[in-house]
Amino acid sequence: MSVNQFIQDHKERFLNELLDLLRIPSVSADPKFKDEVFKAANFVKESLINAGADTAEICETAGYPIVYGEKIIDPALPTVLVYGHYDVQPADPYELWDSPPFEPVIKKTKIHPEGAIFARGSADDKGQFYMHVKAFEAMMAAGELPCNVKFMIEGEEEVGSDNLDKFVIENKEKLKSDVILISDTHMISMQDPSITVGLRGMAYMEVEVTGSNRDLHSGTYGGAVANPINVLCDMIASMKDENEHITIPGFYDKVQELTAEQRSRLNEAPFDLEEYKSKLDINEVHGEKGYTTIERVGIRPTLDVNGIWGGYIGEGAKTVLPSKAYAKISMRLVPDQDWKEIAKLFEDHFKSIAPASVKVKVKSHHGGAPAVVSDTSVGYQAAEAAMEETFGKRPVPTREGGSIPIVALFQKELGSDPILFGFGLDTDALHSPNEHYGVQNYFIGIETIAAFFRHFRKLSEA
Amino acid sequence: MSVNQFIQDHKERFLNELLDLLRIPSVSADPKFKDEVFKAANFVKESLINAGADTAEICETAGYPIVYGEKIIDPALPTVLVYGHYDVQPADPYELWDSPPFEPVIKKTKIHPEGAIFARGSADDKGQFYMHVKAFEAMMAAGELPCNVKFMIEGEEEVGSDNLDKFVIENKEKLKSDVILISDTHMISMQDPSITVGLRGMAYMEVEVTGSNRDLHSGTYGGAVANPINVLCDMIASMKDENEHITIPGFYDKVQELTAEQRSRLNEAPFDLEEYKSKLDINEVHGEKGYTTIERVGIRPTLDVNGIWGGYIGEGAKTVLPSKAYAKISMRLVPDQDWKEIAKLFEDHFKSIAPASVKVKVKSHHGGAPAVVSDTSVGYQAAEAAMEETFGKRPVPTREGGSIPIVALFQKELGSDPILFGFGLDTDALHSPNEHYGVQNYFIGIETIAAFFRHFRKLSEA
Repeated sequence: MSVNQFIQDHKERFLNELLDLLRIPSVSADPKFKDEVFKAANFVKESLINAGADTAEICETAGYPIVYGEKIIDPALPTVLVYGHYDVQPADPYELWDSPPFEPVIKKTKIHPEGAIFARGSADDKGQFYMHVKAFEAMMAAGELPCNVKFMIEGEEEVGSDNLDKFVIENKEKLKSDVILISDTHMISMQDPSITVGLRGMAYMEVEVTGSNRDLHSGTYGGAVANPINVLCDMIASMKDENEHITIPGFYDKVQELTAEQRSRLNEAPFDLEEYKSKLDINEVHGEKGYTTIERVGIRPTLDVNGIWGGYIGEGAKTVLPSKAYAKISMRLVPDQDWKEIAKLFEDHFKSIAPASVKVKVKSHHGGAPAVVSDTSVGYQAAEAAMEETFGKRPVPTREGGSIPIVALFQKELGSDPILFGFGLDTDALHSPNEHYGVQNYFIGIETIAAFFRHFRKLSEA
Repeated sequence: MSVNQFIQDHKERFLNELLDLLRIPSVSADPKFKDEVFKAANFVKESLINAGADTAEICETAGYPIVYGEKIIDPALPTVLVYGHYDVQPADPYELWDSPPFEPVIKKTKIHPEGAIFARGSADDKGQFYMHVKAFEAMMAAGELPCNVKFMIEGEEEVGSDNLDKFVIENKEKLKSDVILISDTHMISMQDPSITVGLRGMAYMEVEVTGSNRDLHSGTYGGAVANPINVLCDMIASMKDENEHITIPGFYDKVQELTAEQRSRLNEAPFDLEEYKSKLDINEVHGEKGYTTIERVGIRPTLDVNGIWGGYIGEGAKTVLPSKAYAKISMRLVPDQDWKEIAKLFEDHFKSIAPASVKVKVKSHHGGAPAVVSDTSVGYQAAEAAMEETFGKRPVPTREGGSIPIVALFQKELGSDPILFGFGLDTDALHSPNEHYGVQNYFIGIETIAAFFRHFRKLSEA
C-alpha cells in the first residue's frame, strides 16, 4: 500500500493521537505544570517507538528533557533530522478561550471550513512536529522510507531552549544529518504555500522600578514622591522616538540593511493590507516609519512590552501611590544583531535613563539569535518540489517575524541550513486564546513531509 | 467622676471595642465584602446607643448605609456634628502585611514606643471616628456633655461618597449644627500638633486601550501592529512635561496661585526633607518643578497612575502582543478645580491623543472637590485650645494632600466649615500594607475631643 493510501486509511487515528497529546498541559514557563511537561516527553518517546524508530530515548538536561529517536535504514543514504518542541505557551488568559485550552475540540471556521483543532499547542508546535512522526510511520508502514531519519523534540522552546546548545554541542555526531526539518512556522495561505527563509531573534527582559519602600497614600504623598508606574511609562515611552525608531544607543549598529532590490522582492509576497487590518479589527497598522508591514515583521527589530503591572488592579478604585512597577519587555532581532549584546545595551540604557528618585532592576529572561537560511540548497529545492506536488503551486520564500533560536544554533554547530517547513497560518492564534490548527493543514503537512523525503533522496543522488 | 478619669478607668475596654470593629473587613470597593460592610454599619449603630445616644439609625442609601445618631440635651445649646466613615480601603497586596489586615495586633514601633494598632482602617478611619464615640460616652458617663451632639458615619468614603450628597441635601434640618468635626486627617507629629485647613479634591479615572481584536504572537505581528501597552505608556508619559507639569489643556485654569507670603507661611511648618527621604528610603523626591515638597502635596494638583495592567504578568516569559492594556489614573485637585470638569478634560484629552491604531475607553470612577477651611472660626479656636490643653503646645494650621469630598459638600449645603481634627501621623501607612494607629494617639484624641466640647461651649457663649 502507498504512503498516501496509508495516511488516508488512518486519518482518524492520526487525529486522535494528536488530540491526546494536546490534552497534556505541558506549559514550560510555569513550574506548576512540571509533571505534565515530563508526561508530554514520554508521550513523544512512545509515539516514536510505535511509529517504527529503532531507538527512542528521554535525554535529561538541566531543565526539561530532549526526546531523541532515530531510524537508520542505510548509513550510505541521506539523513533527515527533525526538530520540534513538545512544550507549549501558557494559556492565560483562560477566560478568553471559547473552550478549555487543554480540552481540544474540532470546529469549523471561515478559514478552515473542514474544521480546525482548537487547543493550546495545536499549531505551536505539537500539531506540527507530530506530522513528522505520522509521516515517518506512514513511510515505514508502506515500506517506503527513502532516507534515514532522526528526531530531536525538545521541551524548552517556549522558554528560550536554555539547555539545547549544550546538548547539540555534545551530540554533534549523533545529530549528524544532511538536512534539518523544522515545522514551527506558517505559510501565507493554503492557496499560497510558502517557505520561511528568515527568522527574527529575541532578547526578553524583565524590569522592576521601585519608588518608596512601601505603598503610599496618593493624597498624602502624590506629587512629591516618584510614582514608579508613571516613571516606568516615561522610560518605556522614551525608548522609541516619534518614528518608532528604538532609541537604545547602538541598537541598530549590526542590523543588516537590505538592498532596494531585496526589499522589493520581499514585498512581492501576496499581502492584502485591508484584509490584514480587518482580520485584526484595527483601523491602522502601527510601526517603524519608512517600512512596509511585511518589512516591519520580516527585516526590522522591535521593542514590545509583553506584560506590565503595578499598583491596584482589582475592582473599583484604590488611591495608592505604589512602591513598585514591573514590565516584561522583549525585542525581536534581525541579522546580525547579537541577543546577548542587545540585552546588555538594553540593561545599560534602562539604568542610565532612570531618574534619581527611583531604583531599577533589570533581568534578562532568555534570548535567541536571528537567522536567514538558504533558498537554493538541495533541502530547499526538495521542500519546494514537495509543496508543489501537494499544493499544486510553487511556494514562495518569506521572512517571518517569529524566533526559533535553534536555527542559528544548527547553522553554527551542525553546519547545515534547516528547512522551515511550516504548514500553519498566521491566523492560527499562536500564543493567544483559541489557538487552532487546520485539520486539512495537518494532513496535507503529513503528505508533504513524506513527499519531501522522496524528493530529497532523489535530488541528493542527482 | 471626671471625663478624663472615666477615660483612664476604661482604657482597656475602649481599646478592645475598637479592635472588634477593626476585625470587620468592611471594604467598600470590593463587592465580595458587601455583608461585612453592613455588619460594620450595625456595629456603629450599637456603639452609639451604648454610648448614650437618644436615637441611632441605619439610613439606607442607593449604596451602603449612613449611620445617624444624636443626643440633644438642650436645643438652646450649641450642636456638634461628627462625621466619619466605617468603610476601609482594600487591603491588597495582602502578602506585604506583617500580620493579617483584619486581625488587629498591637506592636511597639520607633515612632510609637507605647504601641500601635496594626490593621486596615486603624487610622483611616475607624480608629479616628471611634474616638468621638468614646469621648461622647465618657462625657455622658461623667454627666459633663456640654453640647448637643450628632453623628453621621458613612460607608462609602473610600469609593467617593456617591450617595452622601443626596442624604445631606435631603436632611439639612436633621444635620443642622454649629460646628462639624471630622477626624480623618493627620498631625505633623505628637510633638507638633497641627490642624488641617486645606484638602485636595480628586478625579479618579480608568482607561482601556485596545489594539488588535485578540492577543497576538509578538514575533509574527510585533513591529507592525500597535502594542496597547506601549501606546498606553506613550499616552501616560505625554500627560506630563519635563517639569512634571500636567499637559492636559485647561487643567490648571482654575488652580488658585498662592501669594509669596501665603507660600512662605505654608513652608514654615516643621519639615525635615532628609528625614522624609530616609523614612521612604528614596534618594530624591520627585515632583513639579518650582515647588517645595510641602507645596507639591498641599497646593498643587497631581496626576498619578494608581494601577496598570496588561499582557502576560505570570511567571516566566510569554511573547505575546496583547490586545488590551488598562490603567487606573487619579488626579488630586486644588481650589478651585472642579472634579467633574477635570474628569471631562482628561477624557477628551486622552481620546484626542490616542493614535489611529488603537481604540480607547475612558470611565470616571468618582471624584471630590478640593477645600480650604477657616483657621479663625469659633470651631477652629476651640480645637486650637483643646489641643493646646492636651498636647501642651499650640497647633499649627497645615494643608494635607488627601481628599475628603464631604468637606466641600458641608461648606456648600450646611454652610459651616468643618474642623479637620485628625490625630494620626503621616507614617501610619494609610491605604498601605501595615496601616497602624498609635494607641497613645487614640487616647489623647479622645481626651482632646472632650476638651473641644468644653471650649466650644465656652467660646460659643462668649
